[in-house]
Amino acid sequence: MRLFEATETGSIEIQIGEDLQAKQEELAERNRRFFQERRIRVFDIAGSVGAGKTSLIGEMVERLSPKYKVAVIAGDVATTHDAQRVTGKGATKVLQINTGGMCHLDAGLVARALEQLPESGIDIILIENVGNLICPAYFALGAEARIAVVSASEGAHVIEKHPAMFQSANIVVLNKIDIAEAVNVDLNRPLEDLKALCPDMKVLKTNCLAGEGIDDVLKALEIV
Amino acid sequence: MRLFEATETGSIEIQIGEDLQAKQEELAERNRRFFQERRIRVFDIAGSVGAGKTSLIGEMVERLSPKYKVAVIAGDVATTHDAQRVTGKGATKVLQINTGGMCHLDAGLVARALEQLPESGIDIILIENVGNLICPAYFALGAEARIAVVSASEGAHVIEKHPAMFQSANIVVLNKIDIAEAVNVDLNRPLEDLKALCPDMKVLKTNCLAGEGIDDVLKALEIV
Repeated sequence: MRLFEATETGSIEIQIGEDLQAKQEELAERNRRFFQERRIRVFDIAGSVGAGKTSLIGEMVERLSPKYKVAVIAGDVATTHDAQRVTGKGATKVLQINTGGMCHLDAGLVARALEQLPESGIDIILIENVGNLICPAYFALGAEARIAVVSASEGAHVIEKHPAMFQSANIVVLNKIDIAEAVNVDLNRPLEDLKALCPDMKVLKTNCLAGEGIDDVLKALEIV
Repeated sequence: MRLFEATETGSIEIQIGEDLQAKQEELAERNRRFFQERRIRVFDIAGSVGAGKTSLIGEMVERLSPKYKVAVIAGDVATTHDAQRVTGKGATKVLQINTGGMCHLDAGLVARALEQLPESGIDIILIENVGNLICPAYFALGAEARIAVVSASEGAHVIEKHPAMFQSANIVVLNKIDIAEAVNVDLNRPLEDLKALCPDMKVLKTNCLAGEGIDDVLKALEIV
């Protein structure tokens, strides 16, 4: 965990962190065990506002729900729109966590949401993290993998600007590839930056609004 | 300042905040006095990744630099691309603050950057905050006004989801209006939400990439 204190000459990282960091890791590990014991596959979908996290989750749920019981946990600063958008796509349960201003989900919040899930029968949980490319990078939730979603409209330098998020991810979804030209972004740049930062990263290109590329994401996660 | 600690039942707000909050306000007030004494007009440009903050600043500098001496302070987690993009637009000085992972600028960081400005002669400072719609809302920098920049591609519910940011703003720039249709976003929704949240907010529509609407922003800030 990274907390910062302002000083007269700038901000310094303050180390009340040690205990909290250990506590965070313990809570994430507890979630991880909870999922493993119940054979639930859990994915943490992170990315900025408007990257397409909710659209991606909706498309994934639609494809997975005929075969699996899927739950969605949607984190948001203040509203329940994301949960509402996913409801009706076939999910067994959709939960909303309102963080009340907090800029990321953490393992404790996820654990609390888990208490509201049905006792048995859930196969897959998709967790939508708070729309933010910075803070969630530092908080593991106990998921099997993190999917970092990034939209073409976030600019050519989005990878380089947010290394921690992409280093914390297991796969990267490059979404809204259809509007790259309209927003004057050359997608080769983020792709090259990703290769330099995380040489083994799987990168999938999608247009979630049109449902394009979703099957490749499911294949990359090995859930088809 | 809002800091959070994880507990077994979720995250709670922890109140080492009192002192830090007061310290933050004191530092912002010190910056404010610094600017007033030197008659420097200072604007804090905040918004998510890819909202168009750097493009907006570039367009503003281009229009202002024939008449005023403009400095730009660009905050970023890890790179200097934003500063590079603005250099050459006519700014007298462009400074980059790398926050090293921190998710917002604060008054102390800005104060430190100010030490690197020329002793006199700067008329306007444009501060580009870190790309994040959540955390910067809670940190005043001492600027005369905050411009919240939001892109059409951030979705119809972006205002409602981030009330603190828009409540902390003095004007809102709704950018990339040209791609609203392509990303299937009805702009009436964020506009109505803004009206409900901040009835007196000035909202300007722009396409910063094409230089459209920039003059209206300058008029709204009363710097033309």
